[in-house]
Amino acid sequence: MHFADRLKQAIDEKGSPVCVGLDPVLERLPAELTDSLPKIEAIEAFCNGVVDAVAEHVPCIKPQSACFERYHSEGVAVYDRVVDRARKLGLIVIGDAKRGDIGISSAHYAAGCLLDDSETGLLGPDALTVNAYLGVDGLQPFIDAAAEHGKGLFALVRTSNPGGDAIQGQRLADGRTVAEMVADIIAETGAAHVGDAGYSLLGAVVGATKSEDAVSLRQRMPQQVFLVPGFGAQGAGADDVRACFNRDGQDGPKAGYGAIITASRSVIYAYANDAHAGKPWQAAVADAAKEMAEQVRTIVNG
Amino acid sequence: MHFADRLKQAIDEKGSPVCVGLDPVLERLPAELTDSLPKIEAIEAFCNGVVDAVAEHVPCIKPQSACFERYHSEGVAVYDRVVDRARKLGLIVIGDAKRGDIGISSAHYAAGCLLDDSETGLLGPDALTVNAYLGVDGLQPFIDAAAEHGKGLFALVRTSNPGGDAIQGQRLADGRTVAEMVADIIAETGAAHVGDAGYSLLGAVVGATKSEDAVSLRQRMPQQVFLVPGFGAQGAGADDVRACFNRDGQDGPKAGYGAIITASRSVIYAYANDAHAGKPWQAAVADAAKEMAEQVRTIVNG
Repeated sequence: MHFADRLKQAIDEKGSPVCVGLDPVLERLPAELTDSLPKIEAIEAFCNGVVDAVAEHVPCIKPQSACFERYHSEGVAVYDRVVDRARKLGLIVIGDAKRGDIGISSAHYAAGCLLDDSETGLLGPDALTVNAYLGVDGLQPFIDAAAEHGKGLFALVRTSNPGGDAIQGQRLADGRTVAEMVADIIAETGAAHVGDAGYSLLGAVVGATKSEDAVSLRQRMPQQVFLVPGFGAQGAGADDVRACFNRDGQDGPKAGYGAIITASRSVIYAYANDAHAGKPWQAAVADAAKEMAEQVRTIVNG
Repeated sequence: MHFADRLKQAIDEKGSPVCVGLDPVLERLPAELTDSLPKIEAIEAFCNGVVDAVAEHVPCIKPQSACFERYHSEGVAVYDRVVDRARKLGLIVIGDAKRGDIGISSAHYAAGCLLDDSETGLLGPDALTVNAYLGVDGLQPFIDAAAEHGKGLFALVRTSNPGGDAIQGQRLADGRTVAEMVADIIAETGAAHVGDAGYSLLGAVVGATKSEDAVSLRQRMPQQVFLVPGFGAQGAGADDVRACFNRDGQDGPKAGYGAIITASRSVIYAYANDAHAGKPWQAAVADAAKEMAEQVRTIVNG
């Protein structure tokens, strides 16, 4: 089944287009884990706990590869097991690894970071974030692998960090910004791989911190699912988020789909928030995930 | 000691500014390795053999992370051991992982992909390739880590693949190309971290396939060491390469430095080339590395 159709199904089942970012940092884990376990095991126990806690409330989870890679091969092994666990619980897993290289190396990355592992049987993520700076020939092996295996991609178009402007916000001679130019390339490249729901397997990362950009990028990429970081800790609000969805419901894909809103720290470290004081840590994470899903559902319907 | 000064010292010692790209692909390994060893072990034996064969002939080696990551955590463990082995043989190791993310995640990548591993004692690479599309705040954690630990970075500015043009070659309203704009950001950001030899710890990846671009980028980035892929298999010639060096020797850093020319497949798979027929595979690799070093030395002096 086409990635975008599987994603839509998962969103329908859970009732809200949200994603929990899984960015485990040792210093912020529950003391009951770090006090009793070696650090790699504490991270794995935490990730497993988060996955289990959020699985019934949200359609997607996005593990941040960097947080695992900092522990070298042991960390990578944990990442792979966590991805597999989340997939087996029915979550759509978006590997946030932002890979990108020339063609032959991208093919290796696609094999290692996107596909299921035929040696161990561990399931790889459903989708991967990629960096398009090297151009379409650097993306193509990811697209080929995704198309063959029912998986998806999210190419960085407009990131949510303050410094993204200096490059992505530059104006071209033809009037477009660099981000808009990349968006046009993504839209064109993704057009060959559109599923029944009207969305391509090639989506786009569009930070939610600038709603004026989101409006323009939405017009340029009607067939791209937007992966939208920046909700919660990074400060994006309801209007910023709303601009990322397709809302016309006429010519293009159905209104209310087309974006996945991601929050990381505000959900996975919810037990450190006074609002959840006194709850077991997993219950706090589950409640925060549920609240976020409801909040975004309200925004989408608003 | 500052990364760029260590690099210059290594170039002086070996007599040529070259780098061997280590992109191991199972299908191309010597049959004597793949026939007798499980695949991960064959890759490690091959990488060790290449490292040992080239160490006396070239100053740098650049393992391609993708080729190892495709074997998941086991591959990453091999990568880490190969990097450590090459460093202990005195090679300058450039980890080609093209990482890049927002600040907090870049800090994790710097810890995992650039620094030495305090747990295992394995030495990390001397330098890392990074992707600047997310802007300076996404690079800063890499720069901070590199500055603190005497390491270096090479940011993607102009890649050697044909498709790089579509994004990097776009013209801005102010007349610069996207690559030139990124070059200006890299030059400005790197200026705070210049060593005794006049080069910054923040270098630039500039493909050797377009000498007209290299001339412009050299002017914009006088303090950047250029990491130049595209020699050999990708088709760049002497003039393309020559344009990447600093040649005035007046105001700027010394002439004849400032670039590292990389070849991968033409060196590491030299045993499959008729010119080296009949030699043991490691001897073929050693001879190819030596020839490449001599070839580039002639170009630089020519």
